[in-house]
Amino acid sequence: MTSLPISETSPAPAVTLADIEAAAKRLSGQAVATPLLESPALNRLVGGRVLVKPEMLQRTGSFKFRGAYNACSQIPPALRAKGVVAFSSGNHAQGVAAAAEIMGMPALIAMPKDAPAIKVANTRSYGAEVVFFDREKDDREELGRRLVAKTGATLVQPFDNLKVIAGQGTIGLEIAAQAKAMGAALDAAVVPCGGGGLIAGVSTALAARHPGLAVYAAEPAGFDDTARSLVSGKRERAAPGAKSWCDALLVPMPGEITFAINRRTLKGGFAVSDDEVAGAIAAAFAHLKLVAEPGGAVALAAVLTRKLDARGKTVAVVMSGGNVDPAVFCEALKRGRGS
Amino acid sequence: MTSLPISETSPAPAVTLADIEAAAKRLSGQAVATPLLESPALNRLVGGRVLVKPEMLQRTGSFKFRGAYNACSQIPPALRAKGVVAFSSGNHAQGVAAAAEIMGMPALIAMPKDAPAIKVANTRSYGAEVVFFDREKDDREELGRRLVAKTGATLVQPFDNLKVIAGQGTIGLEIAAQAKAMGAALDAAVVPCGGGGLIAGVSTALAARHPGLAVYAAEPAGFDDTARSLVSGKRERAAPGAKSWCDALLVPMPGEITFAINRRTLKGGFAVSDDEVAGAIAAAFAHLKLVAEPGGAVALAAVLTRKLDARGKTVAVVMSGGNVDPAVFCEALKRGRGS
Repeated sequence: MTSLPISETSPAPAVTLADIEAAAKRLSGQAVATPLLESPALNRLVGGRVLVKPEMLQRTGSFKFRGAYNACSQIPPALRAKGVVAFSSGNHAQGVAAAAEIMGMPALIAMPKDAPAIKVANTRSYGAEVVFFDREKDDREELGRRLVAKTGATLVQPFDNLKVIAGQGTIGLEIAAQAKAMGAALDAAVVPCGGGGLIAGVSTALAARHPGLAVYAAEPAGFDDTARSLVSGKRERAAPGAKSWCDALLVPMPGEITFAINRRTLKGGFAVSDDEVAGAIAAAFAHLKLVAEPGGAVALAAVLTRKLDARGKTVAVVMSGGNVDPAVFCEALKRGRGS
Repeated sequence: MTSLPISETSPAPAVTLADIEAAAKRLSGQAVATPLLESPALNRLVGGRVLVKPEMLQRTGSFKFRGAYNACSQIPPALRAKGVVAFSSGNHAQGVAAAAEIMGMPALIAMPKDAPAIKVANTRSYGAEVVFFDREKDDREELGRRLVAKTGATLVQPFDNLKVIAGQGTIGLEIAAQAKAMGAALDAAVVPCGGGGLIAGVSTALAARHPGLAVYAAEPAGFDDTARSLVSGKRERAAPGAKSWCDALLVPMPGEITFAINRRTLKGGFAVSDDEVAGAIAAAFAHLKLVAEPGGAVALAAVLTRKLDARGKTVAVVMSGGNVDPAVFCEALKRGRGS
């Protein structure tokens, strides 16, 4: 699967609960089983019960390690020496680099020129080679194919890959089990959405454990292509020229595989502005004592601004990552004050 | 116990495992059972296995809620209407205020004039009345007695109180159980130390679960009165005129009750500088994605600077709180860069 170009995938791809459970077994002992956190201060703020899944506490500082390791660990031994290739705005890069290092495979990672310094440095710290591309001019798929052709390596797509989606889905299994252990009956879940791999996996797992649970995508304003695609029923593009400081979520349109899943599993989506994201980062600092990167805070932003009204409800909120440069983080604290 | 002046306590006070287990029952459903976190990046940095107990994730943003609630919930019903009094640099203030609010009791809290704004605001947010004192000129015990005389309220001491110590000890029970569940065999534990209540409780619980485990106090340089007291065998004072930005740990000498416990349960202590604390805050930001306040980061600082050499070892590190003003936090990130 991992080395096939996207267009050769089956027309009705699906990740099953069994795929996600198998991924959880592979990840056991490698990924951090992140806790499900509850803050009385945050509950008071929203008037409901907010259960936060803090994936910034995950190995590599974001959820991406889960999918990357699930994919990398299934590469046949004969192909491992040729290594892996990934293109990523930064968190998938770190996930693949860390997974490859564990597997003893070389990793070649293409990152956008404007990726946060901390993400580039961390990716290199796992022994990966980094090459840069232009987020607006270069075609990521074409670049991926070129790098694969050059090296014979296996391409690990950031989201349009069933093994990656199954790995991210382990978050949904954990949320369901942890909420149950806390005696919480979930009413809804809100999950950050870029290409849609995280939410495709999480919503599949949650649908299996809580049939009928409402799962919503949270996206940056201008990049709410999944929300609009869910309305129109076909893959819509991000607004032309849109800008956002949610560097992890700047994907031009939903993935082919991920959208085929998400159109069945999601109830809708919310778009949040940069200021609303700053407010969520500041609230996570003040009330949760967690470091969130902009893209990691969009789901919390949707709940804090009552785009999803959590009053009287129990809502799971995925915070997807915390790889943020100190200067950006401190700027967010300044902008988001008063939340 | 809670309303007795310190001098009337028994000469050989002790907290038992049964006291701590009873506290754990009282706290169940009120306190957050904080996770025990492990970060591969941090492990790599120290060359060993570091298990972090992140009490900034606790209700009120620090461990203090545990002891405060354990004490407040044992105040006889007939005395509850008169309320509670506490004097505190800020975290105990929030703990007592939150516990009193849950119990429906009024709370009068004396805080130092220079307490961080976030701690004063949070204390008031739980409905407590705040009065200020001068950290250097006023006598805290005398102030406490005066407030008690005026109101008839119960004084909840910040550390020299067996019920408070037992509440903090629940952290030790959780560390022991969580480490076991992770398959980790602890070699040592490092715990922040101001008046010594946290470490007295934690070391008592750990001694019961892991006899012979080495437990060390971490203190700010100049305020390493517990480390020096352990060496001399009697209660030593902090260095005259000492300054530190670890506002939570600026206690002039070890408590009478706490030192009677700690002299039996601790192996020694480490002093860390403000710069070393900044380094630990920056490392927790980068590798753990946790918000630590200066006083909450001293134990991690002791491990990162190899005052406790964790190479090849498994070390539990308590991070005691995260109530820090954004400006101070961002200053620490700047100062601590490169760690």
